[in-house]
Amino acid sequence: MRMYDLIEKKKEGHALSAEEIRWMIRSYTEDRIPDYQMSAMAMAICFVGLDDRETLELTLAMRDSGDCLDLSGISGQTADKHSTGGVGDKTTLVLAPIIAALGVPMAKMSGRGLGHTGGTIDKLECFPGFTTALDRETFIRNVNTVKLAVAAQTANLAPADKKLYALRDVTATVDQMSLIAASIMSKKLASGSDIIVLDVKMGSGAFMKTQKEAVKLAETMVRTGIGAGRRTAAVITDMDEPLGLAVGNSLEVIEAISSLCGRGPEDLMEVVYALGSKILALSGKAESEPQALKMMRECVASGAALRKLAEFVAAQGGDASYVFDTGKFLKAPCKLEVYAPDTGYVESIDARAIGTACMMLGGGRETKDSVIDPAVGICLVKKRGARIRKGDVIAEVHASESKKGAAAVRLVGSAYRIGPEPVEPVPVVKAVIDGVLSDDRYAKTSDWNRKF
Amino acid sequence: MRMYDLIEKKKEGHALSAEEIRWMIRSYTEDRIPDYQMSAMAMAICFVGLDDRETLELTLAMRDSGDCLDLSGISGQTADKHSTGGVGDKTTLVLAPIIAALGVPMAKMSGRGLGHTGGTIDKLECFPGFTTALDRETFIRNVNTVKLAVAAQTANLAPADKKLYALRDVTATVDQMSLIAASIMSKKLASGSDIIVLDVKMGSGAFMKTQKEAVKLAETMVRTGIGAGRRTAAVITDMDEPLGLAVGNSLEVIEAISSLCGRGPEDLMEVVYALGSKILALSGKAESEPQALKMMRECVASGAALRKLAEFVAAQGGDASYVFDTGKFLKAPCKLEVYAPDTGYVESIDARAIGTACMMLGGGRETKDSVIDPAVGICLVKKRGARIRKGDVIAEVHASESKKGAAAVRLVGSAYRIGPEPVEPVPVVKAVIDGVLSDDRYAKTSDWNRKF
Repeated sequence: MRMYDLIEKKKEGHALSAEEIRWMIRSYTEDRIPDYQMSAMAMAICFVGLDDRETLELTLAMRDSGDCLDLSGISGQTADKHSTGGVGDKTTLVLAPIIAALGVPMAKMSGRGLGHTGGTIDKLECFPGFTTALDRETFIRNVNTVKLAVAAQTANLAPADKKLYALRDVTATVDQMSLIAASIMSKKLASGSDIIVLDVKMGSGAFMKTQKEAVKLAETMVRTGIGAGRRTAAVITDMDEPLGLAVGNSLEVIEAISSLCGRGPEDLMEVVYALGSKILALSGKAESEPQALKMMRECVASGAALRKLAEFVAAQGGDASYVFDTGKFLKAPCKLEVYAPDTGYVESIDARAIGTACMMLGGGRETKDSVIDPAVGICLVKKRGARIRKGDVIAEVHASESKKGAAAVRLVGSAYRIGPEPVEPVPVVKAVIDGVLSDDRYAKTSDWNRKF
Repeated sequence: MRMYDLIEKKKEGHALSAEEIRWMIRSYTEDRIPDYQMSAMAMAICFVGLDDRETLELTLAMRDSGDCLDLSGISGQTADKHSTGGVGDKTTLVLAPIIAALGVPMAKMSGRGLGHTGGTIDKLECFPGFTTALDRETFIRNVNTVKLAVAAQTANLAPADKKLYALRDVTATVDQMSLIAASIMSKKLASGSDIIVLDVKMGSGAFMKTQKEAVKLAETMVRTGIGAGRRTAAVITDMDEPLGLAVGNSLEVIEAISSLCGRGPEDLMEVVYALGSKILALSGKAESEPQALKMMRECVASGAALRKLAEFVAAQGGDASYVFDTGKFLKAPCKLEVYAPDTGYVESIDARAIGTACMMLGGGRETKDSVIDPAVGICLVKKRGARIRKGDVIAEVHASESKKGAAAVRLVGSAYRIGPEPVEPVPVVKAVIDGVLSDDRYAKTSDWNRKF
């Protein structure tokens, strides 16, 4: 087999065979195909695309390029949740304890944040002592006992994806649906969970700018997950404005704890419950969406979810007392207010600008080696639709020093668009992409999962 | 400027600016852009294309990446002719002496053959002592005195093209019209001639399989040449069957000499005269096509063209006595005949198969380092349209040994398609792509040059 022929085949619009894709990924991982050929292939794929079968084969080939976690030591079907990345996205911190408290084991591999979006690990490390460097035995033991563990991705998880992504990143070939889907799903499949629920963000602060793109990506990933034998579903959620009110690691953790105490912002809880419903349905714990919602709400109201968070934090070495006294979290020394420049209604808050402001404050990573400041960030006081008067406080900036804070205040201020007319509320959950295996084994999966 | 941004811009369908193209080619030549980015760009160009302005800018940037020959020391307007490569294509050997004998200086940079097509330098080296390694002074002196010189391309002629071509060759990005045009024209422009006439081959033995493709390439090159201020024209010629009867270096030289003695095969002479008419028109030597034809025919009939060949061979160190006694050329020891398997008419002769047979015999290069055998080759006895009877000799194979010869006999035999019906003759010159500069300086160029 020659890479030249595969490039030409794809360029001319043909589909690659499973054998060709497997050979290509194996050879590339082993440095037997040069970058200049793989980048030409990636560009050809950007124009020609991959069909569902090719996308699945590519995903499986990348999954198999490294270690695959064996979760068979965990009793019950394990669930994993993945977000395509957003601003203020603390969903995992709220969702995972609820789901675990309801008895579905959550075995989650997670990454750190990069650019204007935050990562779950960075947030969890706000608890002093918390570690995600778990060995396999501890990880599995924790999932069995606590029903929840979060581990950092090992270096050898889908190394083909790591190598290909680095190449795509410098050759303008990142934004291709099948390549994105294969990149995400290869790691999810290698992480071993039976149930995969995806939160695909759309809007100004997300990679997918339009609902059409987000739905296409979600469908591609769900089909791939199902094709690989996993129960998979996706929820398309809004990322035109940040999720919830807090942006910044400690601030988001505090908001997550507050949410588990029953005081969660409406948009955040909408996303948590949409994703949770999917997990509970796919695991067979709930028979219907209303039942799933009731279970989750009761779990929060009873304090079971909050206690689960504390149990989980303690199990991974963290100081669980912070869960019950959020005043303990580090605070930024400098707090500045952002004032409304006009009277009217908040039409939109540019999520990307807020994420960038947080990064400028030191709360996000500009490069992989950046050290982040967990205490800094932004609290949105007014969100989309709010009626405001000129001079009202619309947001707060938490900064390490006043100079950085002042720059962030300007950026946050410019992220708000204020207009004279009342603004129609828009749902944060835009669409749900379900999929069930045609296989009889999964026939008991609830009937509100549409097949496609 | 960042290559990433240029790749993305092109991928999204936008045109690159002159500054961007110049920066890209300069940086790539100086190894400041990695191959994996340039191959992604080349693939994006394969899908999006380059407009005329971009093609011209790319051509000029590649031209300027190395040395540009200064031909100002040559009196009169110099002409160059380029063929996109064919089987049995000895056109230059016939055309150049005719044009030189008519007083138009021919300053030709030439390459060696590769694959199934032959190169002019390989053919000229059949004359013992002949050299194309001329220094600049000798080259210009010879053009001034003999009106004809052929030099091998220097290593530093359009090095950007050399580097880019090598990359395209391994990334399936060769077959893009603008990239092909820029590759050819950058070298032609760097070679310095005022008049450029292109022979664009089409058909089974050529890179361009269809007339539509060939016309598109020819038009792109002509527009580029004119855009760069050169008088440029192109002729589209048939390469479904080999040109003339002889394929193989010595055999082709003998056929060229025979053609200059007035016994040239009709198809070869049609191509020679079409190209020659263009050169004579663009140089102002002829006012009309009939006049140009008359001048060229008389030049052959008088023996002036043959004498010019001898003068040219001698001026570059070759033994000119071979021109007047072709029996002196080396002969292959083994001559085999190919017989007609059926009675009927020759419908077609696959030029590519004939070229491959010649390469198998040792008459062409499989790799850049192959040593070629000048004596071997194929003589076609019957060509398209000929009426033949079963058992007739349709071709002769000249081989170094009988085993190689027998394999070539089989391949040559299979290249002939014979049918029961008479075959309509088809013209070998398919189209002429003219172009004159709108500039008044060239207004005297003959009126049979259509503008576009």
